[in-house]
Amino acid sequence: MGRDWAAVLDVDVEPADLREHVDLADFRGHEYELLPDQRHGVERGTVFLDGAVVRGYPSVSRTLVLDPGLTNYFEDRLIVEEKLDGSNVRVTRAPDEWAESVLALTRSGYVCPYATHLAAECEEMGDFLADRPDHVLCCELVGADTPYTDHDYPEVDGADLFVFDVRERASGEPLSVPERRRLCEGYGLRQVPAFGTYDSGAAVGAVRRAVADLDRRGREGVVLQSLSGRHQLKYTTSAIHRSDLAHAFSMPFDYGRQFVFSRLIREAFQTVEFEDDDEAARERARALGESILLPMVEAIRDVRAGEPVGESHEVRGDPEAIEDLLAHFRDQGIALSVERDERTDGDRVVAFTKVAERTRDKTEYYLAGGTRDE
Amino acid sequence: MGRDWAAVLDVDVEPADLREHVDLADFRGHEYELLPDQRHGVERGTVFLDGAVVRGYPSVSRTLVLDPGLTNYFEDRLIVEEKLDGSNVRVTRAPDEWAESVLALTRSGYVCPYATHLAAECEEMGDFLADRPDHVLCCELVGADTPYTDHDYPEVDGADLFVFDVRERASGEPLSVPERRRLCEGYGLRQVPAFGTYDSGAAVGAVRRAVADLDRRGREGVVLQSLSGRHQLKYTTSAIHRSDLAHAFSMPFDYGRQFVFSRLIREAFQTVEFEDDDEAARERARALGESILLPMVEAIRDVRAGEPVGESHEVRGDPEAIEDLLAHFRDQGIALSVERDERTDGDRVVAFTKVAERTRDKTEYYLAGGTRDE
Repeated sequence: MGRDWAAVLDVDVEPADLREHVDLADFRGHEYELLPDQRHGVERGTVFLDGAVVRGYPSVSRTLVLDPGLTNYFEDRLIVEEKLDGSNVRVTRAPDEWAESVLALTRSGYVCPYATHLAAECEEMGDFLADRPDHVLCCELVGADTPYTDHDYPEVDGADLFVFDVRERASGEPLSVPERRRLCEGYGLRQVPAFGTYDSGAAVGAVRRAVADLDRRGREGVVLQSLSGRHQLKYTTSAIHRSDLAHAFSMPFDYGRQFVFSRLIREAFQTVEFEDDDEAARERARALGESILLPMVEAIRDVRAGEPVGESHEVRGDPEAIEDLLAHFRDQGIALSVERDERTDGDRVVAFTKVAERTRDKTEYYLAGGTRDE
Repeated sequence: MGRDWAAVLDVDVEPADLREHVDLADFRGHEYELLPDQRHGVERGTVFLDGAVVRGYPSVSRTLVLDPGLTNYFEDRLIVEEKLDGSNVRVTRAPDEWAESVLALTRSGYVCPYATHLAAECEEMGDFLADRPDHVLCCELVGADTPYTDHDYPEVDGADLFVFDVRERASGEPLSVPERRRLCEGYGLRQVPAFGTYDSGAAVGAVRRAVADLDRRGREGVVLQSLSGRHQLKYTTSAIHRSDLAHAFSMPFDYGRQFVFSRLIREAFQTVEFEDDDEAARERARALGESILLPMVEAIRDVRAGEPVGESHEVRGDPEAIEDLLAHFRDQGIALSVERDERTDGDRVVAFTKVAERTRDKTEYYLAGGTRDE
């Protein structure tokens, strides 16, 4: 190892300055390199697979108001697609010497055994990548059976991958949105729902209606894009703000502090833009309070009762993929509490909790009368 | 200037290491030195007045649960006093060469012109400090007319100082609580209310009842102390958690982030300890949500309407003290928006807002469609 990433990526930085941030990982006996955080303008999650580079997925800007957020950001027509509540994985062809045909990379750039198995079972993805080996399918991994999130979409049976972007591996350059949708349609790939194309002026009303509808159905939000796919802007529902808070405060000392402020701010600007009436604002406020306090109270009670606190998942699938997944979490230093582990119809089913150790330890400390110095 | 503080305070640190944190300030033509933050084990707000040192008030530990918080912390009997919602000032004798007889120092160690005037008008304080020049009266400055907080106590007419501790200036050593209360009583000084003395086992129930009563009356909480005054522990009501949050979120980008997490945690542990019933927990959650979202929505609306956002106060009193106070805020870099400034019966009355500039600027940016990179 020791490749000069800076030269390959054509960025103006000393090779050693980039290299010190590069991590070395292993998937079934094959080593690969990755950049787990954004550094020197290179996207977080950029991966090197035997010399081929797969660019990390860029961060997407967020607006807190639709009006004039949209009109400022987009000069021209824009297309509205749904943002699903799952995890971002990039599906790419594996190097020729590897046993796998395709690999699924997490946002940080690690190969996810679970999503890799799911992608490998999807013939349409294999076909697409065989025809376009220099492209990467950017997908949302969603469903109640995934090991990362648990949003249960009625249209998803357990777990699935929805394409929301297609990019050149090496440059990160996107296909245009219409071309991407047409191509994916042609290969029979599942895609995120689209809400139509609008002039930037007319989009405000349309997006507001789409967001209100998604909110009622408990869904996350929208991504607005220029037709070229090069400009993207996201906007989310009150439902996901509350659901993010409930998740964070079920592990308050692990995630509460980092999540809380941004979600409160989003909710406040949305209230100002969406609600004219004080009673509606009050209802939002109450629901917000419930999504913060009640999960935290439950977590404290669980710690008091000696139960594990953390993110609980149940995964099912190919035994080898499940074994690799659990090993992958342990490699990342995540403590797992396994509540169930059995075989049914050739599948392995594992129910586990990623233990929120900081929450457990801090909560135990305070419940025992530990003090804070203030 | 250039005195060796480390030697005077008898702390084991290089003089220059302490000196670099020392600030130089001026009150009506007299210079003094202070330590605005805790450094090298020396309390925040420690002040040098022509060579005499006044120790900063120490930070007081907090417990998140009464049981076993109290029983762990206190081996022996403890005395329960009310914690008032105001600002901590230390009243000390002024140096002989100064025109003032007494000075009131803020928590950070600056002379507060407003509290100094109030203290100077209190003959009992002058008498006490004339008899005990080596002591400092630690007081809570409370009332709707003060320039720092606006909790309106029924027993306070505008503004007043309540003694909650008496300490040796130079060493910071407290008087015992019974001696302090007896002495203050003798001089006719106003003191914080006391709720009695308990064995540490019996205190839990008594404190819980006191806290519930204070909460119903919208008051802040209690300070528990060993009779020696050397060990102190604080515990606060749900009412003050909500009121702190409402205050912070009326200026979300100035105070929201730093205040929110600690108050949520306090409220959660209190819910677990105080409420057995889910409906009571839900009511707390809703009230909490209202205290966060509604002030923030109002702040955003105010910015949109071009109104000043920030902490609003109305002060009345001696014209010179008021003038000095406004100058004191401006010296500290606080932008003031003065809404009213008039004379009545020899007093000067000024209504002003300490402008929350970061909240104003960030809110304007987002309302104009500015994006966040996430």
